Amino acid sequence: MSRWGPDARGRLAKAALELYGERGFDQTTVAEIAIRAGLTERTFFRHFADKREVLFAGSADLQKLLVHAVASAPRSAGPIEAVAAALLAAGEVFNAERRDYARERRAVISANAELRERELIKMASLASAIAEALRRREVSDPAASLTAEAGIAVFRVTFDRWVTKASNQDWRALVRESLEELKVLVG
Amino acid sequence: MSRWGPDARGRLAKAALELYGERGFDQTTVAEIAIRAGLTERTFFRHFADKREVLFAGSADLQKLLVHAVASAPRSAGPIEAVAAALLAAGEVFNAERRDYARERRAVISANAELRERELIKMASLASAIAEALRRREVSDPAASLTAEAGIAVFRVTFDRWVTKASNQDWRALVRESLEELKVLVG
Repeated sequence: MSRWGPDARGRLAKAALELYGERGFDQTTVAEIAIRAGLTERTFFRHFADKREVLFAGSADLQKLLVHAVASAPRSAGPIEAVAAALLAAGEVFNAERRDYARERRAVISANAELRERELIKMASLASAIAEALRRREVSDPAASLTAEAGIAVFRVTFDRWVTKASNQDWRALVRESLEELKVLVG
Repeated sequence: MSRWGPDARGRLAKAALELYGERGFDQTTVAEIAIRAGLTERTFFRHFADKREVLFAGSADLQKLLVHAVASAPRSAGPIEAVAAALLAAGEVFNAERRDYARERRAVISANAELRERELIKMASLASAIAEALRRREVSDPAASLTAEAGIAVFRVTFDRWVTKASNQDWRALVRESLEELKVLVG
């Protein structure tokens, strides 16, 4: 076992999620996470600011992916099409292998008020980042923020379906369904 | 001056907002708010849990108003129509007399990360409450949450316009405009 071993980060994240699920987030210490992962506390803190951030370590990458997809949508794409492209692109992250992790993560977050708040802030940051990416496509406000927030509403609903569905429905299919539903509901 | 004088609550809220604007939220103490209002700290704590809650004292009433309007929409109204009725009903609160207060409150909140988070949580609570009110109208999920979240996106955009516009545009007119815009954007 090496402190610098491959995937120390992944082992720490896995150990943390297991412990949060077994004992609850508040009842778990960084020391316990390190022991479970077969690593040291120092190694933990080399990878994560604190035990909460383990659960949000992917947020920055997700945000980059969404922003990049909005920016890369064809010039001809309208705001909702650019946002749809971003939601579809998130299928890279939300693939079949990720589902169990996502489901367990969500259960841990649902059980804890502080984590629910952190998750809300994450979603709001995603919405702001998407709105900003739309503005760079010369979409003016309020269209930019309205489309971004509607997009995040679709994201949430898609995520809920993807994570809970018994059926193994694909992320991209669920995005299309949810977008279509929004269109019908608002229309 | 009486501790039980009429509108002690209103005087405290006004004094708090003034001080937050002048000195910043973090730099203001409850003692200073009480002095500015000509009241005691004890009176402050009879009305508000802490200095943050002064800014969120209206949230529960706003939520009740929105939920009541969703519940009272005609039986024939679809989900987006029930949500539109709720947004329009909020014009009772967001009237011309309220605008200066709302603008100052927003400036204070924008300047402080903790308050911005609290505001996000408030908006998420409003969305959940509206979704729940829709479910009681036998709107199933994900339609209920999708419509509620789209409604809150419209609420935010409307609020931003209402509070910042140089023109004295009426809340209800802005709600209609924003709803129409969402329809065009998503459609």
